[in-house]
Amino acid sequence: MDKTETIKRQVESFSTDFQRKLNIESLGDNILNCAELHASKRGFGLETISPRDQAWVLSRLSIEITEMPNIFNDYQITTWIESIYRLFTNRNFVIHDGNGKVFGYARSIWAMIDRNTREPLELEHLYGDIFSNYLFPEKNCPIKPMARIKPLGDTIPVKEYEVVASDIDYNIHLNSIQYIRHIYDLFSLDYLKEHTLKRIDIAYINETVYGDILDFYKQEIDHNSYVFEVKKHSKEIVVRGLISFC
Amino acid sequence: MDKTETIKRQVESFSTDFQRKLNIESLGDNILNCAELHASKRGFGLETISPRDQAWVLSRLSIEITEMPNIFNDYQITTWIESIYRLFTNRNFVIHDGNGKVFGYARSIWAMIDRNTREPLELEHLYGDIFSNYLFPEKNCPIKPMARIKPLGDTIPVKEYEVVASDIDYNIHLNSIQYIRHIYDLFSLDYLKEHTLKRIDIAYINETVYGDILDFYKQEIDHNSYVFEVKKHSKEIVVRGLISFC
Repeated sequence: MDKTETIKRQVESFSTDFQRKLNIESLGDNILNCAELHASKRGFGLETISPRDQAWVLSRLSIEITEMPNIFNDYQITTWIESIYRLFTNRNFVIHDGNGKVFGYARSIWAMIDRNTREPLELEHLYGDIFSNYLFPEKNCPIKPMARIKPLGDTIPVKEYEVVASDIDYNIHLNSIQYIRHIYDLFSLDYLKEHTLKRIDIAYINETVYGDILDFYKQEIDHNSYVFEVKKHSKEIVVRGLISFC
Repeated sequence: MDKTETIKRQVESFSTDFQRKLNIESLGDNILNCAELHASKRGFGLETISPRDQAWVLSRLSIEITEMPNIFNDYQITTWIESIYRLFTNRNFVIHDGNGKVFGYARSIWAMIDRNTREPLELEHLYGDIFSNYLFPEKNCPIKPMARIKPLGDTIPVKEYEVVASDIDYNIHLNSIQYIRHIYDLFSLDYLKEHTLKRIDIAYINETVYGDILDFYKQEIDHNSYVFEVKKHSKEIVVRGLISFC
C-alpha cells in the first residue's frame, strides 16, 4: 500500500468564512479526517484501536497557509508519517490542488493513550512494526517544526468561555479543532478583514471536559504574531501556541 | 435535467458528536450545501445570483430525524423544490442511505433579497420560468410543515452570547446553521446523553451581525419539547423555534 493517503474535497458554501474562503475549522477537521483515513486503511485507525481501549491524542499541530482555497475550488490533503518514537509519531500534510499548486502544509505530533488510565502507551513497541511499512521520512515538508513557546507571564484573560456540548468529542474532551476556532475568534472581524492567517502552532497540554471554564490569553510578541494560552479555571494550562497573520 | 439533486457523504470522525454520530451542525451544513448544488446546477445558485446582487435567505428550516448516521456510515441527501410563490419557495430534503433506509427529512422556505437594499425580491417573477422545469410537488415529504409558534412571554434568558467571527458568513450575518448549534448547546451533556434529537423547527426573523449580543430563551412546553427564542440586545426577536427530543 502507498505510504501516503489523499482526500479530495470541494470548498462548499457552508465550509467557508465571511470572505468565501475555506474556513480554518473545516480545514482542520479535514486534516484530521485525512489522518484517520490513512491510519484506518493501514491497521491503526479508530476501528482497530478503540476496541483495545486505545486512543490517538494530538499533542502538537502546526498549519502554515500560503493561500486558502476559494469557494467551489477543489482541494486535496495528502498525509504521510515522518517518524515514530517510543511515545510519539510525527505525521505531515500537504494541502494542494492535485496539479502541483500548494495551499499549505501541516505538521502534527501524536501520542497514543490507554482510554481507561489516560496514560501514554509505548507506541513504538505496539505499532512500530506496522508503521515501519509506511514511514516516509524522505518526503519533504518544508515548514519548520513548532518552536518552543515561552509561557506568557501574568496577563489578563481576553475571554472567558464555558465548554458546551458541541465542543465535545467521543473522548469526552474538547475537540482539538474547536480550540483553533475559539482562538481564531479572539480576533475581531475588522482585524480578520485586513489580515490573512499565515500560521498557527498549537500544543495540547491538558484535556478539558464539558462545563470547564476556560480563560483565553493572548499577547502580540511580534508584528501580527500572537502567543496564546488557554487555562482551566484561570490556573492549569490547557493549550499554548502561536498564531500569525500577514 | 433531473428535478432532484443528491450529495453523497461519509460520516467522518471530525463531523461526529460525543456519541460518534453525525453532529447536527454537519448535517445542517450539508443540507444547505445540497440546496446550493441543486440551485447552481440549474441556474439559480450563488455564482449566478451573486453578480446580480441577489442572495438566498433561509426563512424557515425544519429537520426531523429518525436516526442519525453513525461514524464511517455513508449517507446521502436528496433535495427538490416543492413549490414557488411570489416571494417564497419551498424546498424539501430526504436524508437516506441510498438503499431505501431513511434517516430523516427536512423542509425549508427561502426568500431572495437584494443584497444592497436587503428587500425581498419578486421571486416568481424573476425565477418562476426556470423553476417551472424543476417543480416536483408530487414527491412526498412526509414530515409536517412547521407550525406557528406562539412567542414566549416574559422569561429570563438562559444564555448570553456575543457573535464572533467564525459565526459569520459571506452575507456578514450569523450563519443559519450556527443558530442551531448554539440552540443545541443550551442543553447539558447529561441531558443529551439521555435524549436524542427528534426535530428542530426554526424561523429566521431578523439578521444579526458581528458583535451583536444575543440572549437565548427556552421553555419546555411539552415533555422534552422546548420553544426557543433568540433576541438581540434583549429586545428584537431574531429567531424562534421548537426543538424536541425523545
